[in-house]
Amino acid sequence: MNELYLIKILILSTLSFVLAFLLTPLITHYLYKYKLGKSIRNTGATPVFSALHEHKAGTPTMGGILIWFTTLILALLFFYLNLLFPNNNFDFLNFLTRPETILPLSCLIATALVGLADDFIDINSQGRGGIRMKHRLFIYTVIAAVGALWFYFKLDWDVFHVPFVGDIFIGWWYIPVFIFVIVATAFSVNEIDGLDGLAGGTLLSAFAAFGTIAFIQGRINLAALCGVIIGALLAFLWFNINPARFFMGDTGAMALGVTLGIVAMLTGQALLLPIIGFLFVVESLSVIIQIISKKLRHGKKIFLSSPIHHHFQAVGWPETKIVMRFWVISGVTAVTGIIIFLLDRGI
Amino acid sequence: MNELYLIKILILSTLSFVLAFLLTPLITHYLYKYKLGKSIRNTGATPVFSALHEHKAGTPTMGGILIWFTTLILALLFFYLNLLFPNNNFDFLNFLTRPETILPLSCLIATALVGLADDFIDINSQGRGGIRMKHRLFIYTVIAAVGALWFYFKLDWDVFHVPFVGDIFIGWWYIPVFIFVIVATAFSVNEIDGLDGLAGGTLLSAFAAFGTIAFIQGRINLAALCGVIIGALLAFLWFNINPARFFMGDTGAMALGVTLGIVAMLTGQALLLPIIGFLFVVESLSVIIQIISKKLRHGKKIFLSSPIHHHFQAVGWPETKIVMRFWVISGVTAVTGIIIFLLDRGI
Repeated sequence: MNELYLIKILILSTLSFVLAFLLTPLITHYLYKYKLGKSIRNTGATPVFSALHEHKAGTPTMGGILIWFTTLILALLFFYLNLLFPNNNFDFLNFLTRPETILPLSCLIATALVGLADDFIDINSQGRGGIRMKHRLFIYTVIAAVGALWFYFKLDWDVFHVPFVGDIFIGWWYIPVFIFVIVATAFSVNEIDGLDGLAGGTLLSAFAAFGTIAFIQGRINLAALCGVIIGALLAFLWFNINPARFFMGDTGAMALGVTLGIVAMLTGQALLLPIIGFLFVVESLSVIIQIISKKLRHGKKIFLSSPIHHHFQAVGWPETKIVMRFWVISGVTAVTGIIIFLLDRGI
Repeated sequence: MNELYLIKILILSTLSFVLAFLLTPLITHYLYKYKLGKSIRNTGATPVFSALHEHKAGTPTMGGILIWFTTLILALLFFYLNLLFPNNNFDFLNFLTRPETILPLSCLIATALVGLADDFIDINSQGRGGIRMKHRLFIYTVIAAVGALWFYFKLDWDVFHVPFVGDIFIGWWYIPVFIFVIVATAFSVNEIDGLDGLAGGTLLSAFAAFGTIAFIQGRINLAALCGVIIGALLAFLWFNINPARFFMGDTGAMALGVTLGIVAMLTGQALLLPIIGFLFVVESLSVIIQIISKKLRHGKKIFLSSPIHHHFQAVGWPETKIVMRFWVISGVTAVTGIIIFLLDRGI
């Protein structure tokens, strides 16, 4: 049986890659046609950042559409084929099932649409930024809260797994913990989306790690969803490598961040998230530390520019060097996460 | 028990990474001190290649020393600690055992020393190249033949595993097949060693795939050897990323190629090698096709420059774009190889 499941995931990932790859010219065409290009933040508050990124103005953002749109098409296609032709084994390729993938897929699409709106506003604002931070935080908290309530009441989950310790029942605390995990992951992934190929490559490692974990747990459809996202991410990454043809945008980064958080909660391995997504944590911390330092030390900075990848840029590392080194690190942290999972579980 | 083995491999890989990382300043110092820099091939026969690589002249080669030297130190350290203090559990970290790792490690060191000599000659030849091709072919064939005889007579192996078909007994044909696998892998890996981070990244994927396969087969010490090579490769890669501080050189590429071939033979999965090392095959084929075309079509070329990564460079892709795309491909082919292995084996 396991072989069949592995083949299912392999077929779906390949289909996803092929579909996303074929969709690329179409999406690129419309992004360029409607000039959905990135306007580089230039409010005077971040001089180092602005100087480093002037040359990127005009490259279309919203490339993340490629990823969630492909995922959505494949999910609905096999779901409806299965409904319409119930005796044709289409359920083999259907991965849209209630306990495993309906919630992460719904949240992926919901946050992708919010991100899309945000990207649109950002483009039309001539560098003043998209939706304001506190409004954003509110929107994503609401989405995370819906997920939290679903888990707590519909799935009756109130267990938090601690590696090498065991399951800890945390009762209604599950809800705030859930919200924190989702919102923190989303904003962290969004922070890392600042250099060509950086968010794509690190997300690839993270989804591969959680996909592997879900597969070993027997959560086949969840693993399949990760596989589909990986397939589409691969196609995206191919064109996102420096010099990038398009960026991911909020519609990619926030949506995939939220989804990654939910996948981690569904596998019960949210505590592996800071290990597997180590770089996301580092990116977020660098931003938080920079803000605190500026506030407490009368404007003095700790990093030349934050998030931290811009610091390395300011120090003089070429963009591709930062991205390649971060890719290597994300591969190592992903494998480390899987190994801890295996050691904890027993192999 | 499996957990302990996994921890063993994890500890050894980490030690290897740390040791190689610490050795880097030392090796860099001597490479620069004795001006062991690359002289860029410029015989007039390859004008495209020469133009593209002028700026790299002077970057030290022989960085591959880092990888095999680290591997050798760790192997001997725990082997002798285990001999000297037999009751101190040092055998836990010893991975030098007769049937599994003595042969690949010996071949690693032997070919590394041959490669080192070749690199030295190359540097002192002012761009006329190292040992002549037919002498090289002879030397590596001899090394491979020793390995083949060892397998055939000492280990009594004459089985070739074909995925989804089964084991095929090929008798003394085992010896030429073995020699072909080793020599072809070595020369292919050597071909791919032409851009910053290219050989390092693709070898990392290949060793990770075969390490995983060896682990699943219960060949723990072989998996540990792969882990140690991976750890050292990671440290090497960190400094080999564009702009590279040093190159791998023949002492790295040929040696790791031979070792990869032997590891593939030891796992009995040599037929997965063209899948896991798909890019190595592509690189070799591009060279062979180019040579044949030049001979048969009165000097007309098929690629602007060969191996194929130089073709992409000549077409206008930035070096880092080629390397990153090849990394992505090597990751996909490595995972594909592992999946075929799992499907064939049954999970």
